[in-house]
Formats: sequence, C-alpha cells, structure tokens
Amino acid sequence: VSRGVVSSELSLKEIAAQLGGEVLGEASTRIRTVAALDSAKAGEITFLANSKYRGRLAHTRASAVILAPADRDATSLPRIVAEDPYLYFARLASLMRPQDTPAAGIHASAVVEPTALVDPSAHVGALAYISADAKVGPEAVIGSGCHLGARAAVGHASRLHANVTLYHDCAIGARCIVHSGAVIGADGFGIVRDKDGWTKIPQSGRVVIGDDVEIGANTTIDRGALDDTVIEDGVKLDNQIQIGHNVRIGAHTAIAGCVGIAGSTKIGRYCRIGGAAGIVGHIEICDEVTISAFTLVTKSITEPGTYTSGLPLMPHDRWLAAAARVRKLDELARRVRDLENKSDKSNKPINGGEGEQS
Amino acid sequence: VSRGVVSSELSLKEIAAQLGGEVLGEASTRIRTVAALDSAKAGEITFLANSKYRGRLAHTRASAVILAPADRDATSLPRIVAEDPYLYFARLASLMRPQDTPAAGIHASAVVEPTALVDPSAHVGALAYISADAKVGPEAVIGSGCHLGARAAVGHASRLHANVTLYHDCAIGARCIVHSGAVIGADGFGIVRDKDGWTKIPQSGRVVIGDDVEIGANTTIDRGALDDTVIEDGVKLDNQIQIGHNVRIGAHTAIAGCVGIAGSTKIGRYCRIGGAAGIVGHIEICDEVTISAFTLVTKSITEPGTYTSGLPLMPHDRWLAAAARVRKLDELARRVRDLENKSDKSNKPINGGEGEQS
Amino acid sequence: VSRGVVSSELSLKEIAAQLGGEVLGEASTRIRTVAALDSAKAGEITFLANSKYRGRLAHTRASAVILAPADRDATSLPRIVAEDPYLYFARLASLMRPQDTPAAGIHASAVVEPTALVDPSAHVGALAYISADAKVGPEAVIGSGCHLGARAAVGHASRLHANVTLYHDCAIGARCIVHSGAVIGADGFGIVRDKDGWTKIPQSGRVVIGDDVEIGANTTIDRGALDDTVIEDGVKLDNQIQIGHNVRIGAHTAIAGCVGIAGSTKIGRYCRIGGAAGIVGHIEICDEVTISAFTLVTKSITEPGTYTSGLPLMPHDRWLAAAARVRKLDELARRVRDLENKSDKSNKPINGGEGEQS
Repeated sequence: VSRGVVSSELSLKEIAAQLGGEVLGEASTRIRTVAALDSAKAGEITFLANSKYRGRLAHTRASAVILAPADRDATSLPRIVAEDPYLYFARLASLMRPQDTPAAGIHASAVVEPTALVDPSAHVGALAYISADAKVGPEAVIGSGCHLGARAAVGHASRLHANVTLYHDCAIGARCIVHSGAVIGADGFGIVRDKDGWTKIPQSGRVVIGDDVEIGANTTIDRGALDDTVIEDGVKLDNQIQIGHNVRIGAHTAIAGCVGIAGSTKIGRYCRIGGAAGIVGHIEICDEVTISAFTLVTKSITEPGTYTSGLPLMPHDRWLAAAARVRKLDELARRVRDLENKSDKSNKPINGGEGEQS
Repeated sequence: VSRGVVSSELSLKEIAAQLGGEVLGEASTRIRTVAALDSAKAGEITFLANSKYRGRLAHTRASAVILAPADRDATSLPRIVAEDPYLYFARLASLMRPQDTPAAGIHASAVVEPTALVDPSAHVGALAYISADAKVGPEAVIGSGCHLGARAAVGHASRLHANVTLYHDCAIGARCIVHSGAVIGADGFGIVRDKDGWTKIPQSGRVVIGDDVEIGANTTIDRGALDDTVIEDGVKLDNQIQIGHNVRIGAHTAIAGCVGIAGSTKIGRYCRIGGAAGIVGHIEICDEVTISAFTLVTKSITEPGTYTSGLPLMPHDRWLAAAARVRKLDELARRVRDLENKSDKSNKPINGGEGEQS
Repeated sequence: VSRGVVSSELSLKEIAAQLGGEVLGEASTRIRTVAALDSAKAGEITFLANSKYRGRLAHTRASAVILAPADRDATSLPRIVAEDPYLYFARLASLMRPQDTPAAGIHASAVVEPTALVDPSAHVGALAYISADAKVGPEAVIGSGCHLGARAAVGHASRLHANVTLYHDCAIGARCIVHSGAVIGADGFGIVRDKDGWTKIPQSGRVVIGDDVEIGANTTIDRGALDDTVIEDGVKLDNQIQIGHNVRIGAHTAIAGCVGIAGSTKIGRYCRIGGAAGIVGHIEICDEVTISAFTLVTKSITEPGTYTSGLPLMPHDRWLAAAARVRKLDELARRVRDLENKSDKSNKPINGGEGEQS
C-alpha cells in the first residue's frame, strides 16, 4: 500500500482527512512522526489508549495527542478525538512511517532457476535462491538469503524478510509478512514404530497460507502428511511458534510467541492463544476462544471463552511445600472424605445420644 | 534408497510382492498414490489404522484399502491385509513417492573451500558454504544456503535441507535428515560467575550424530564443553527442540516439538518425550520412558513407564479459584491435620465417656 | 583477546604467572589442554569443582589438577590451588584453546553494498550480505550467510556465527557473540483489533545490545514498537529464547534456553532465569531474582529471591488422580471449611453438654 510513499509531515487536518476523527485545537499543527507518551518530542503526536494514564498527559512534550471521546478534554494540546485511539495510532503510524520497500528487480547475486517465474515488479534480494518452477508475484519482496523450493509460490505484495525458508510446493497468499528464520513446509513429525525403531511416513501435503498473514521470526509450520496444513486469511503468528502437520488455523486468529500446536488440530476463527501455550494434536478449538499464556490444552474446546492452566509462581520455599501437597492431593482428598464420614457418624450418635437424654 | 526411482503406478499384486501382506479382491487393481481415508480418489489406496473408523470405509472413493486382519472383511473393495496397516502405509508411501533427490554435483554458486572433500555423487546446493577440511559423503545432499564449518562431516546419503548450520568439527552419520534452520554445534551455555559478571567456558567438545537420525526445523543441538554431545542411531527429533551441551540421547528415542533438554542429561533408548516437555540438566532417564506433553522432569527416572506433570486447563474463573487454593495448599493440609487431631480427641472423650457410662 | 594466539603447551608455573593461584608439586609439568576429570589424559589438566567428587581424583589420568584450598591435599598430582577452581578452569581453557578466529578481509562471495563501512581488520564470511550504510567494527567477524540490514552496526571484536540475521538499524556492542540462526530486530508482535481482523502497528524502534553479550542459536529479539528493545552489558542468553518488543534486560542477567519474555517487561541486573520459563508482558522484575525452570511469571517481582511454579512429574496414573483433585480443589477447600464449622459447633455442644453434666 505504502510502496513508494515518502514519509513527510502532515497537519492534524490532513491526518483527519485521511483517517477520520475530530480535530480539537490548532488543526494546522504539523506532525513529523508518532511517538510514545513519555518519549514524544515536539513535532510528534502521541496517544492515550487508557484513561488511567491521563495524568501523564501533563508531562508529555508531544505537539498533539490522539484521545478517546471520554478523554477529549484531558489536555489542552492540539488533539484528535477517535473512537479507538490505539487503532487510530496504528493506522497513523502506517501512514507516516511507510515500509522501507526495496526497489523492483533481482539482485545480481541472487540465483533464480530458469523455470522460476519472478514478476518484474518483485524484488529478489542478494544471495536468495529461487528454485525451478517457483513463482514470485507482483510487488513481492524476497529478502536476502531466502530459499524458495521447487514450485513454491509467494503472492502479490507479500514480503519474506532475510533468511526465510519456504519448502517445495508451499504457497503464501497476498500481502503476507514472513520474518527471518521462519521455516514453512518442513516435514511433519510422522513416524511409526517398527520392529527395531521408527519408519518415516513421507510428508506429501503442502503448507497453504492465506492473505494478510504475518509469521514471526523462527516460527515453523510443517507441511501436511497427505492433506495440507492450512493457515487462513488474517492469521497473526508471533515468533518461535511450532505448528504441526495438518493443522488448520482459522481466519484472524492471533497466536503469541513460543506456542506449540501438535498435528491435525483445528483452531477456529478469531481465537487468541497466549504465549508458550501448548495444544495437543487431533483436537478442535471453536471460534472466539482465548487461551491464557502457558496453558496446556489437552481436549477439544466447544464453547467460546477464556481457558487457563498455568500456575503462578511462589517464593521457592512456599512452592516446595505446595508442590509436595499437590503430589499428595489425592490422599488429602481421601482424608477429607474420611473426616466427613466420621463427622456424619459422630454427629448421629451424639444427636442420638442427646435424643436419648432428652 | 529411492534415489533416481521414478514414481509410477503399481498393482496390488506388485505392492504385496515388495512389502508383503495378503491381497483380497482384484489383485490387478492399479494404484497411483496413497491418500487419507476421507480425501482418497479413484486410483489411490488408503488405510484403516483403527477399527473404530470402520464406518468411514463405506464413503471412501479409494480404489483399494490397507486393513488389519481384524478388519479384513470391513469392505468389499480390493484390499491388502497387513499386521500393522499404518506401518504398511508408511512403507508404501515411501515406495510410491520417492524423495525428490537433487542430481549429483556442486551448484555453480556454492562456495567450497579447496581442502573440503565433497564426494562426486553428493549434491551441494546453490549458495551453500563448505569450509576447509569439511567432508560431504557419497550421495549426501547439502541444501541451498547451508553452512558446514571447518572439519564438519556429513555421512552417506544424509540430507541437509536449505539453511542448516553445522558448526566446525561436528559430525552427522549416514541416512540422516536435517530440516531447515536447524543449528548443530553452537556453543553450550557454559558460564561461571565472576566478580563482576560471567566468564565464558570455552565449548571444545563436538556434536556427534549417529545414523538414521531426523532433526526438525529450527532445532538446536549444542556442542559439548569438553566431551561431546551425542545423538545415537535412529533418534527422531521434531522441530524447535533445544538440546544442551553434553546431553546424550539413546538410540531410537523420539522427541516431539519444543522440548528443552538442559546440559549433561542422559536419556535412554526407545524413550518418547511429548511436546514442550522440559528436562533439567545432569539427570538420567532410563530406557523406555514416556514423558507426557508439557511435563517438567526435575529428577532422574529409573523405572520405565509414563510420567506427567502438566495440569489441564479450566475455564478461567474456575482456574482462578483453583490456583488460589494451590497457593494455600500447605495451609489447607495443615487444617485437615488439625481436624483429624480434633476428630481423634473428640472421639476418644466421647467414646471414653460412653465407656464410663456403660 | 586471544586473536592470533596459537594454542601451545604451558607449564603450571607459566599458567600461575598468568592466572594466579598456588602451584603445588612439580611446577614444570607441561600442560597441553584442559579436560574433564574422568576423560583427562596425560598432558592434560583437570579440575575439582566440588569436594564431593574428591574420590574420583584417585582414578584421573590427568597430569595436573586445579583444586580449591579445602582440597589442596586431596591428590599428590602436580596441582594449582585456586579460590574458585571452576572459574580458574574457565579462564585457563580460554587461554589454552583460543577461538579459531578467521583472518581479516571480505570473502570474495560476500556481498557488501557500497555505502556499508567494514573495518579492514574485520572478517566478512562467504555469502554474507551487508546492506547499505551498515557498519562492521574492527576485528568483528561476520559469519557466512549472515544478513546485516540497512544501517545495522556490529561493534569491536564481536562475532556473528553463520546465518545470523540482524535487521535494519539494530546495533550490537563490543565483544559480543551471536550464534547461528539468531534473529535480532524482527517486528514485535504489535497488532490491534480492527472491525474485521487485526491492524498491524508499525514497529519503528530498534534492538540495542550492549557489550560482552552472548546470544544463543535461534534466539529471537524483537525490535521496539516506538522506543527500543535493550539488552544491557554482559547479558548471557542461551538458545531459542524469545524476547518481545520493548523489553529491557539488565546487565549481567543470564537466561537459559527456551525462555519467552513478552513485550515491555523490564528485567533487572544479575537475574537468573531458568529454562523454558515464561514471563508475561508489562511487568518488572527487580535485580538479583532467580526464576526456576518452567516457571510462569505473571506479576512484577519486587524482592530478590528464588521463585518457582512448575510442578514436578508423577507416574501418569497418580498424576491423573492428583490433576482431577486440583480441578476440584476449590470444592475440597469448601468442604474443609464446612468440617471446621461443624467441628467448632459440635465441640461446643459436647463441651456444653459435659459442662451441664458436671
């Protein structure tokens, strides 16, 4: 979108003309860039996403602020009132800091096999390798050191940063971003126990990635065994995520760093998976599910909502005591049951005795 | 093994001649490829690994099925009866979908130092780098962008996919598969506290990998500090596993994704480690141990069996209540002990009283 | 430091002259290298870090030993007495096994953009790519296949092993070591929910890394959103760590493998974070905190000490029972409260009854 756009100053009026919102105060105030509340300087615009930080507005050196309607009078600085100041800020940042998109063309040091199809408007970086019959779409960017396997495809305006590996036959849609070290299409972990060890199950499926997907650094997505692994449109994946073979991730689901998802699991749309969560294989998670960080998912989830399993920390000595108790929790529960039985019995004779006395 | 073999149709009779099993129905049925039960088409063979999915056989469009003896009559389709249909399928898939093995030779863009020894039957991909005195064995494949350090060695018919890093002096045996982004031989995390910070302990050992090992994408195996890190024959490692220095993993152990194994730990043969498990350093796990996904191993394990620690998830509100109780579990156990003491005491006087009354 | 130094034999006397310590026995004993207690051979020096392994000294074939003052007479071998034998060993190992530092110069196959500044004493390896306006300092080493983005900077004598990715504008200080597959400066996971999906927040900050930092294989450190992500001097990071945007890690903190740290969290100085721990975003951990392996940190920590949350494993059957009890722990606690209430009540009437009787 911002291809070729040069960053430059905008007035509040010009900003509102493009992104909406109501300008209060001097609408001709010129803005050079966006900045955080505490570090903003003159010529910069900042934002207040949460009313509880209102007090910090007094100390900002920003020239303008983006505010929610509830905070419209929390400062006398020139300002833009927007329904969702954080979203407004995100859009403004995109507008004012366009991606540093490399020029079209194939770097002289890149290696492109003769049968590969690279669109003339695409960029292929230094020392990248494009295998036979691979396709690079219009305005796509293949970073330095990337590997595109045979028949792999990268869609319109997608960007692979340096050192991404895309295995043979895998396909990435339009406007995706893939960060360095990501590996898409390695063999799934398919082995079957043999007499003496393990026999490998050939992994013949692909990875198919939709449009507007972002994939973080060193994230790995395995190719399917027979059918494909599928990442639907608008999915956002952080760094160091592992996605097993034949997984399907529904559109617009966001997954934080270090999550592991085992093979053949289906995750719904608009889910949010917290960092370092683990999801076992062959289960289904419905739409609109939130999984907390560090949570283990061992069964299918059929109701939207938030689910958690990770225990919070304690000082080590107290934890030692608690952990020992967890190990004996079954015994403890039996002891409570015994007490309840005794309590029932001892109450009866006592009452009975009292009854006899009365 | 399948080097140079071209995929082609086989009849059930021809398949059974190579892989064994009993053919029922039309033995001349020709098979183009293997496929999953639900997505198989005409000309394809599928398999039934578990009798509970028998009902789905009615709807398959496959031309033939691999079945266990117990299910031999579950379909009227042409079929092969085999003791372990899943294993049979794995072998058949390997037979029918041979690896796309690149031709022998060194790509013009690869850089091979003069003292490196590359077997004429090996393949070195585009933009790969082979350091001085490194060795690439017969029929080995070094993918594009790989780095082989000084004196590193890759054995017969092993394959490194694109962008693998093998540090100096490390050795990989025969018929191994290493996926993209794997790093073998980086320094172990050896530091010792100094007056003001940390002093690095030079990591002088190697990584030594046996035969028939598979290593997943972005998995890291650190070199030993003084002695070597050792991965024995037939070990299967999924993606994003971290193996610390001086670890030894016994033959035919299989480890799922995202597992971390700290330094100097020894793991036995034929173990199975579930995804995202964590294993502390300097312990020993005996042969034939299964560790469940998301389990923390803090002590040596001396008995075969299955071990688990990860808590399953709960709806967040219920989890908040339970987690608060875990934090106070030591106190709860003391309260139960108090109740038991009171119960013992109150029972005695009552009984005693009753005894006196009688 | 050891640049250009050739490994050679040293006598105990020569060693003590450089590193201190008291020599006992034959001071002219010549040492070729360092080795572990059990695998040391003639001509090698080993060390005893812990008095409890004293018995193993009887069987070592080492020619000399490094010992603590308390163990000074535990062997009759030539020996060096040092306050901290492990630290002494680390320094000696560095002295005797100098890094295999490549020669100055740019490999013919590397690609260096014309406006990049590479110091003549630096080494740029085969097939590395140095973008426009990037800087490589004196005696720095850029491994084969590395990518330095536009305006990225690597300081004096720092070493990037093969296949490291350093994004645009990020800076690494002096004497750092970065292992293969590390990705420094990928976009932080900044997204904000939009009507239909997610809007990306441009990540405009940098990663700034101090001096004497070590970064493990496949570790990822995200660039800041507006401000920078900062790794202070002397921080040691193991493999496969994920550090989110705008995190700050205090000087000399050491973090073991597979740890995930979410965005905007501040970690103090001299902390130690155990393997596979998870730290949520927007919290602060004070100096001198130790986090055990596999621990989840969900709140700020304001007191130095050791904190833990990971449950240790159990045999699977016992764990099934305990885990079921954890799920019902809130109910169990209520039942204990009921018993306590009954106990209070039933004790009163009984005593009351007895009182009436007396």
